[in-house]
Formats: sequence, structure tokens, C-alpha cells
Amino acid sequence: MTYCVAMRLDAGLVFLSDSRTNAGVDAISTARKMTVFEEPGDRVMVLLTAGNLAISQSVRQILAEGRDEKRSLWTARDMFEAASIVGDAVRQVHKRDAHALRDAGIEFNVSLIFGGQIRGERVRLFNVYAAGNFVEATPENCYFQIGEAKYGKPIIDRVVHPSLPLGEAAKCALISMDSTLKSNISVGLPLDLLVYEADALRVTRFVNIDEKNAYFRMIRDTWGQRLRQVFGEINDPEWDASREAEFPLARMGEADRWGQPVRAKRERSRTQD
Amino acid sequence: MTYCVAMRLDAGLVFLSDSRTNAGVDAISTARKMTVFEEPGDRVMVLLTAGNLAISQSVRQILAEGRDEKRSLWTARDMFEAASIVGDAVRQVHKRDAHALRDAGIEFNVSLIFGGQIRGERVRLFNVYAAGNFVEATPENCYFQIGEAKYGKPIIDRVVHPSLPLGEAAKCALISMDSTLKSNISVGLPLDLLVYEADALRVTRFVNIDEKNAYFRMIRDTWGQRLRQVFGEINDPEWDASREAEFPLARMGEADRWGQPVRAKRERSRTQD
Repeated sequence: MTYCVAMRLDAGLVFLSDSRTNAGVDAISTARKMTVFEEPGDRVMVLLTAGNLAISQSVRQILAEGRDEKRSLWTARDMFEAASIVGDAVRQVHKRDAHALRDAGIEFNVSLIFGGQIRGERVRLFNVYAAGNFVEATPENCYFQIGEAKYGKPIIDRVVHPSLPLGEAAKCALISMDSTLKSNISVGLPLDLLVYEADALRVTRFVNIDEKNAYFRMIRDTWGQRLRQVFGEINDPEWDASREAEFPLARMGEADRWGQPVRAKRERSRTQD
Repeated sequence: MTYCVAMRLDAGLVFLSDSRTNAGVDAISTARKMTVFEEPGDRVMVLLTAGNLAISQSVRQILAEGRDEKRSLWTARDMFEAASIVGDAVRQVHKRDAHALRDAGIEFNVSLIFGGQIRGERVRLFNVYAAGNFVEATPENCYFQIGEAKYGKPIIDRVVHPSLPLGEAAKCALISMDSTLKSNISVGLPLDLLVYEADALRVTRFVNIDEKNAYFRMIRDTWGQRLRQVFGEINDPEWDASREAEFPLARMGEADRWGQPVRAKRERSRTQD
């Protein structure tokens, strides 16, 4: 698996991807999931990929070659057209491979995050699906995740909003990644972090993060420590032996009363009411 | 979906389950996932269920009826035998329903957490699968989750160990549930929380938690606030314009150089080394 996240903020875009790929736990290797398409002063586009690596690489190959002079990422008038070109590349690979994959019992599984800016337009971010269709990030839903997304979602849901500064958004993405790394072995270092400042129209901030990266090491240590500290500062629940609680008790043979709460004197949380 | 978590600690057991069930977003209702089997002074067993509700309810029905006098949860000599009785109930339902479900294109999907204590034995906790087989919690792996488990896993991985006091474990389970509730609409209140103190051999601490529960409301408010506070206290990454960074740049038509990092002068994290 993999984990990639991207955020569209008022100040620009944040892209973060891991580099773990595996065909079963006995076939784990490294593949970078981020690709940058840049024409300084005119356009910057970033592609993150998850799913079947053969499909992802084919899509990237098609997009990079840009054989179709009239319709490529290098000539697209705006990001919407660029996203549709990415979707077309997915459909081209589907046309070529999907049938053979299905015969092999493998589903056509790929999912992409694509975003950036073309001169004259605002920054935009899209989530492109395996069918080649896509949705765009909005102020109400300003981030996309692909791959092993669930572990790292809660911190983003609590912190990210469009007016968040780029530095804080990058920090949030790294914490989200750290939570994922800690709970899922199918996601791994090194990471590619790209922070795009709106209207720069060139890549200004990129870093490849490995075990030696001091900032990420700080995040990993500090976040875990501080989480445990905050956890310790929150009161434990209190229980009150004098109160009754109803709980779903099963009694031998009483199938007819199944699921009916049974009144029984038990301690219950003092804070119930 | 649903989310259930249970922990086996030196001091006893913690069980927490939600009560959201749905057959698609247009068919959402409430069903409690926790069932208690209790013979005060002799045994306490708790069952948490996730997956197909029809299967879960059939399994609970079979276990509660305990028709087989010679082999039921009420007569099991130890928790291992009790767990195998739960597994047998799953297999009985599979024998009855699996074929018809397959014909309807529905997989036989159920997953259970089962734990407790029988007099003369220590507290034990098991994860029972749809095939009726099961694994037991160990000191190295002292908790099980079923249903929408991923959102709430990172906090457990950072906090829970066998020597954690019951109160803190219950608090951790509720925070894990809160993260899940916040990020996944298929999990919902009310919650059933049961804390079993080792050797009590009766249910002493149970509470059904709804929106009005003051303690859970405090957890929800405090945890989110303090997370954002800790987040704000961690430094943002710094960038250094004078350093070079290599990043995966695609250049028009340069498919042969695909994926080769391109040296380009870019700001990079000052903390890279």
C-alpha cells in the first residue's frame, strides 16, 4: 500500500507521499509516488499515485511523454483540462491492461491526486479515480487522501481549514503520515514533501525525508510524547456504586428476552447525566 | 459499519462498542453490538459483534439459548472452550445462511470480539473470525478492534500496554472511539462501555453513553482542543533557499529519464541533515 495526502489552502498547496510499495509482505520495496511537471513561470503540476504500481507508472509515462502535441499537461489551458488529461491517461492504460488483469483475477486499481497551478488561474487540486473521472477540492473539503488514508485522517479533520498557513499544513501532513507509519507497516519512509506557494509558478519548497531527517524525527518524538502527556492530563471516568445501569444481559434460555436491557444494580459512570 | 474495541490488561478487561448499523446511507439505524453473559460469582463473558447484522444476531441467539446442555457458554470449563463455542455458533449460522447469501452476491461477513473470565482462570480475550477460528490477546498484542478500526488505532498504539490501569484504558478506548466518530459517519452513538475488574466475576462497571453523557462530552471537547494546542506548540518546518534539493521532475518528452531525480536549485528543509 501507500499513503499520500494533499491539501489546497488559500496560501497554496501541500503534497506529501510515502515510498513503500509491496506485492505481499515478502515483496516490499521502494517506489516514489510523487511526480512534478514544471514549466517555471508558466505552470507547476504535481501528481501523487496509489494502487497498482504498474498502472501508476504507465499513467506517469503517458503524461510525461506528452506525445499528443495538441493535448498534454504542457499545453493544457487550465488545471481542469490538465485533470481531464490525467483521467484520459488512466483510461488509456485501462483500455490496454484491464482485460488482461481481469483474466488474472486482478482488479484495475489506481487512484491519483493531481494539483497545481497554471498561469492566470488559481491553485487547484483534484482526486482522479480509476475510471478516469475526478472531483475537485473545495473550501468545505480542502484535502484529499489516497491509499492507507484512515489512520491519518482524524488529525487532519481536527486541524486543517483553507486559511491554515502552509507551514502548519505541512506539519499536519507529516503528523498524519507519522500516525500512519506507526500503525501500518505497508507505508514507509522516505517521504516526498512538496509545498507550493500560490502564484510562485515554480517549485520552491521540496524535501525528501528519510530516517535521518531531524525535523521529522522531532515530529515523531514530540507528537507521541505530547499526546501521551495530554492523555495523562485528562481525568479518568468515575464510577458510582449507588446508581443503577441497564445493560444488555443475556440469560440462559431467555432467547425471547433477547436484547432487552435487564435492570440490574451496577456501578455506572457518575457523569452519565 | 461499526467500531468495537476491547483491551486485555493486567487489571481486567475494557469493552467499548458503538451502536450504528446501516444498509447504505439511506438505511441507518441503531443496534447495540455488546452482549453480556453473566453468572455472578462464576463467570462473566462479553461479546462484541461487527459485520452483517443478521449473522451477528443469529450467533447471539444461538449462544443465549444454549440449547446444547452439554456444551454452552453457561457450562464451558474455561474461556478457551467458551471461545470455541462462539466459533461453533458462527459455523452453524454459516451452514444455514452462507449459500443463500452467496447466491444473493453477499459475502458471509461477521467478526467478533469475545472475552471475560470463568472462576479459577485468568481474564482472557479473543478475536473470533467469520470462519469460526479465533486468536487470543497476548501481552505483546493486548487489544482487538473490529469494524472501522483504522481511525482509532494510532492513539491505542501510542498509549495501551498491559499494565495500564483500567480507568486510563477506558479513557483511551473512548478517545479512540471519538476519533472514529469524527472521521466516519458509519459509526455512531450511543456507546456501550463495560469495564471488568479481574476476579470480580460479575459486571461492576457499565455505562451506556449518549450525546448527554458529560464525561464523553468532556473527552470530545478537551481532546480536540488539546490536540490543536499541542499541534500549535510544535515548530513548523524551516526552509533554506541556499540549499539544493533533488526532486522527481518530469520533462516534456523525456520519458527515458523518467523518474530520475533532476538536480535543480530549490529551497529545502533546513533540517534535512
